[in-house]
Amino acid sequence: MSDTWAPVSFERTNGKTPLIVVCEHASKEIPPEFSELGLKSQHRASHAVWDIGALSMAREISAALDAPLVFGGVSRLLYDCNRPPEAHDCIPEKSEVVNVPGNVGLDPAYRKARALLIHDPFHKAVEGLIDAQMQRLGCPIAVVTIHTFTPIYHGKPREVELGFLFDENEELSRAACRLEEKRGVYRAALNQPYAAADGVTYTLLRHADDRGLPSTMVEVRNDLVDTHDKASCVGKHLAETILQSVNEILPTREIAV
Amino acid sequence: MSDTWAPVSFERTNGKTPLIVVCEHASKEIPPEFSELGLKSQHRASHAVWDIGALSMAREISAALDAPLVFGGVSRLLYDCNRPPEAHDCIPEKSEVVNVPGNVGLDPAYRKARALLIHDPFHKAVEGLIDAQMQRLGCPIAVVTIHTFTPIYHGKPREVELGFLFDENEELSRAACRLEEKRGVYRAALNQPYAAADGVTYTLLRHADDRGLPSTMVEVRNDLVDTHDKASCVGKHLAETILQSVNEILPTREIAV
Repeated sequence: MSDTWAPVSFERTNGKTPLIVVCEHASKEIPPEFSELGLKSQHRASHAVWDIGALSMAREISAALDAPLVFGGVSRLLYDCNRPPEAHDCIPEKSEVVNVPGNVGLDPAYRKARALLIHDPFHKAVEGLIDAQMQRLGCPIAVVTIHTFTPIYHGKPREVELGFLFDENEELSRAACRLEEKRGVYRAALNQPYAAADGVTYTLLRHADDRGLPSTMVEVRNDLVDTHDKASCVGKHLAETILQSVNEILPTREIAV
Repeated sequence: MSDTWAPVSFERTNGKTPLIVVCEHASKEIPPEFSELGLKSQHRASHAVWDIGALSMAREISAALDAPLVFGGVSRLLYDCNRPPEAHDCIPEKSEVVNVPGNVGLDPAYRKARALLIHDPFHKAVEGLIDAQMQRLGCPIAVVTIHTFTPIYHGKPREVELGFLFDENEELSRAACRLEEKRGVYRAALNQPYAAADGVTYTLLRHADDRGLPSTMVEVRNDLVDTHDKASCVGKHLAETILQSVNEILPTREIAV
């Protein structure tokens, strides 16, 4: 029955590593009751709808590190799970150059309904997974979120290939970025191509910073991960960086995989 | 990727009817990290694991009445979403005659983790769907849960075919049972083969009775619904009874389908 949809999914919830992987923009699914949000067909699989390659990378990292994964089940255009319900762009009427007719002039009750059906179960599940992982391991854990960005934004090419973003807790992002610079494979930078000031750190703040847990938001340029094989390759690379940087930050729980 | 699992799924979230359909025991899925819970193969698809036929009926009712549906994504043996986390049998070590080795002697942290991953997102989603439906329609709604039971329990055959169960709010169950008696197709009874005293009304209490919403828990003997076609047939029959009884209870919002 293809009419079924899930706001959130898990993998590997018994993973042995003090770390969880989160992928808010994993899915391009738009359930039938939302009538494709009126999108033009050429935009239906675009970056506006999801983070191309992000779920494939997140799965690779989760598998390589034996870390639990939690990911969103529907398009960010329905509800952007990396935004709080009070943010106007949690249900965008336009995303870069893509108009989203199904989101224009929505009744407040319909906006609220989207948050209740998508945001609330998703974040309850992220919270549950973090609590479950700490319960089972008896120690603090790190939170790593996986995103991708477009190589060209409003006509301007982006040179950066990997970004490590932070809000109140910079430690893990700095460790990961230092390691990437040392490895010299990709052009990495802190807080690129976005930063906390762009309102993109809701998940980090809510689930990590506010709880005193180390975290980083990883952003990968999507031309590097636009096939499954490319995404697996970058995912494996990132797993190594995440492993080493988490071991630096949470040294009492050295991860051996 | 078959390693993926969802604690909760939706269908038809924009349904026009002041009613939601809930199916807690819809799925026999046991994700790979739970190693089949050590079940013997002959029990893997039995009533211990899920409510045979319940999801097919629930879908039929949801479609016939244009009512939203919310259902659980994993076996009740992992976590029984119709039980509160404080109930010992929310993670049963034995179900009727079926031993569940993967649930025996669980560490409290592992029990807690199951509730965090399954119970919490499921009930957040049910709550969200009820709120969303009332927000969109601007009126109270009814909550109907769909279950099935075995024809023989501990060696004793059960004569009843349909049960309508209630806890604090009997109105909808009484109306539905009266209609079934009038229609004369199935042997229907109130609070059979279980009742509130058996601890089976958690969903009703939490999401309906405690909020002043009418509700009923429908129980169908599973030999009547053990194929998709049989379940569809009983589902269509029940949709009619539910439609009429909800119209009796919430007369200001007459449903026309």
